Amino acid sequence: MFVTMPETPFIAIELGVLQNNIARAAEAARTAGIALRPHVKTHKMIEIARMQEAAGILGITVATLGEAEVFVAAGFADVLIAYPLWLTDASAQRLSTLLDQATIRLGIDSAESAERYVRFLGGKVSLIEFLIEVDCGHHRSGVAPGAVGELAEGLRDLGLDVSGCFTFPGHSYALEGRAAAAHDEAKALATAQHQLVAAGFPDAHIRSGGSTPSLAEADVLVVTEQRPGVYVFNDAQQVELGSCNWSDIALTVHATVVSVRGNKVIVNAGSKALGADRAPYASGYGRILNFPDARMVALSEHHATVDFADAAAVPALGEILKVVPNHVCNTVNLADEAFVFDRGELVDCWKVAARGKNS
Amino acid sequence: MFVTMPETPFIAIELGVLQNNIARAAEAARTAGIALRPHVKTHKMIEIARMQEAAGILGITVATLGEAEVFVAAGFADVLIAYPLWLTDASAQRLSTLLDQATIRLGIDSAESAERYVRFLGGKVSLIEFLIEVDCGHHRSGVAPGAVGELAEGLRDLGLDVSGCFTFPGHSYALEGRAAAAHDEAKALATAQHQLVAAGFPDAHIRSGGSTPSLAEADVLVVTEQRPGVYVFNDAQQVELGSCNWSDIALTVHATVVSVRGNKVIVNAGSKALGADRAPYASGYGRILNFPDARMVALSEHHATVDFADAAAVPALGEILKVVPNHVCNTVNLADEAFVFDRGELVDCWKVAARGKNS
Repeated sequence: MFVTMPETPFIAIELGVLQNNIARAAEAARTAGIALRPHVKTHKMIEIARMQEAAGILGITVATLGEAEVFVAAGFADVLIAYPLWLTDASAQRLSTLLDQATIRLGIDSAESAERYVRFLGGKVSLIEFLIEVDCGHHRSGVAPGAVGELAEGLRDLGLDVSGCFTFPGHSYALEGRAAAAHDEAKALATAQHQLVAAGFPDAHIRSGGSTPSLAEADVLVVTEQRPGVYVFNDAQQVELGSCNWSDIALTVHATVVSVRGNKVIVNAGSKALGADRAPYASGYGRILNFPDARMVALSEHHATVDFADAAAVPALGEILKVVPNHVCNTVNLADEAFVFDRGELVDCWKVAARGKNS
Repeated sequence: MFVTMPETPFIAIELGVLQNNIARAAEAARTAGIALRPHVKTHKMIEIARMQEAAGILGITVATLGEAEVFVAAGFADVLIAYPLWLTDASAQRLSTLLDQATIRLGIDSAESAERYVRFLGGKVSLIEFLIEVDCGHHRSGVAPGAVGELAEGLRDLGLDVSGCFTFPGHSYALEGRAAAAHDEAKALATAQHQLVAAGFPDAHIRSGGSTPSLAEADVLVVTEQRPGVYVFNDAQQVELGSCNWSDIALTVHATVVSVRGNKVIVNAGSKALGADRAPYASGYGRILNFPDARMVALSEHHATVDFADAAAVPALGEILKVVPNHVCNTVNLADEAFVFDRGELVDCWKVAARGKNS
C-alpha cells in the first residue's frame, strides 16, 4: 500500500510498540488465567481489533450500539456493550439486527431498563446475556454491590438471563490509586457473585473488570475477564500514573513548531487534534516524546504552548514534535484516520472506523 | 427536507436563537462602525456561514488551510487564515490553489515563516495580504506589540504586502476579564498600527480583534474588524463569564438519562459528544438547559454525572436533557452533523462540513 506522508497535525502509530503492547497484555492474561475482552472504544479500528484477536481474546467490549455495529459488520462475533442502554423503538431495532449476527452481552443497572428490553424485543430478549453493572467505587453508573441481589431478582422475574456482573474501577485513574481500585473491584465482584447465586442465577460465571491502570493488580481468583482499552497505545495519563513506560507509547500526534517565544514554543496541535482532557494529577495538556522535561502549559483549539525551560534544548521553528496526548481515546475519536509507522517508516493508513459512533 | 429524529446523544440547534444571535452581532457591529469577519471554526457549517453572510460580514476567518478549502469551495471569496502557518511543499501547493480562487489574508508572526512563503510561492506571494499577529496578553502565538516594527521591516525587505495586524484577546476568557482584555486588544493594535506605518506600510488599515466575551467591549476607534466565533451558538462558558444569557444558547446536546443514583443522574453524553474542556472558572463539565441549579460533576467518554441536589426535581430514567457544552467549538468538531429545530420541531440536518480539518 502506498501512503503519502500527511501534513501535521496527524495521528502516528508506531507498529512495533503497538504489537508489543498487545502481546504483553495477552501473555499476562494467559499467565494469570484471566480472559481478555478489550475495550475497542480506544482505537475504534478494525485492524487493531484483528491484532488483538490474533493475540488471543474472548471477545470485544464496546460502549455503544454504533460501535457494536461497526465491529460486528467486520466479523467480530462476541460483543459486550458495557453500557446501561435505554432502549427506544429505533435502538431496539438495531439491537435486534445485531442479535441475528453475533453473541451480544449487555450491561444493565436498573429494572426499568430491563422492562424496556422485554417490551421492545419480546421473546428475542432470551438471546441476550446480561451482566449486572456494579459500582466498585468510581460512582458512575452501576448499582452498589449490596443491591445486586434485588436487581437480579427483578431481572429473574422478568425472565432475563444474567450470566454475571461487571465493574469499571475508574478510580484507578488517580496517583497511587491502582492497587486500591483493584481491591475494590475484586470485593465488589465477589459480593455481586454471591448475590447473583442467591437470587437464582447459580450459573452466573462472568466477573468482568479491568481498567488499564489496574490491569496488573487484578485479583486473579475473582476476576474472570478484563476489559482494558488504553493499553494498546498508552498515553500521558498512563505514564504519569506509572502504569506504563515511555517506551510503551504507541501513538503520538505529530505537530509542527509554528511559533517560538523564548523557552516556549507553539505547536499546531490543539484540543481539536489532541482532546482537552486534563486530569487533576496531569502535569499539563499532554507530554512530548523524547522531551520528558517539557511541559504543555496551555491549549487552544489549534495551538499548544510547550514550555522547554527545564529541557536541554528548545526546538526550532518548523521542527516536528511527537505529542503524547493525555487521554488517547478522545484523541483517536477526533481523527478519521491514523498513520502507521514501522521503525520510523510510513507503512499504512488505518481508518478510525467507529469514529463518532456515540449512539 | 424530511429528517428522521436521531438517537441521543446528538447536536441540536435551535434556529430562532441562532438567527437572533447572528442578527444581533451584525447589528451591533454596524452600529459601532466595525466590520465582522466571523471565525467559522466554531460551526464549520456552510449553512451558518451563509446566514452570517446574509446578515452582513466583510469575510470569514478560519484556522487552517483545510477549513479555508471547504469554505472557498462553497463560494466564500474573502478568507483570513488567522494562524501562523509553517509552509511545506504540500501546503504551499494547497495555498497556491486557494489563491487562484479567493482573496486570502494570512496571519504571520515570524520572518522565518515569511521566507518560506517567498521560497515556496515565488511571485504568487504578491497575491497574499499579510496581517501581523500581535500578542495582546493571551501569550500564545504573535509578537509583542513593540516588536511589530522589526518584523514588518523584515517582511517589507522580502517584498511582502502587509495590510494590517490582528490579535486574539483570549485572556477575555476569565471572570471579570472582558473589559481588561478589550483594553489590551486596543492598546496592542494601536501600537502595532504606529509601527506598521513607521516600517513603511502607510496603507496598513486592518486592525482585527475580537473574541466573543470581549465583543461588546471593543474600542470602536481602534478595532476595524472583529472575528468572534462562539457568538452564533454561545455555550456554558459564555453563560458563566456573563457574556450571554441562557436564552441566547442556540446549541445543546440532547442526552438521555440512563442511570439514576439518588440526586445524581447519568446521561449518555460524555467527552466524546461534548468535549472535555473545563476552564478554571467553570462550574463543571457543562450545564443543563432549564436546570440552572444542576451541576455536571463528572465526565467520562460516554457518561456525564449531573448532580440535581440543588435543583427542584431530579429527572427520571429515560428523560432527555439538553446539555449546554462548556466549549461549543470542540463539541461541534466531534459530530458529523447537527440537527436543526424550529420552535421544537425538527426541520433540517446540516453537515459539519469542515469537521476534523486540522491541517
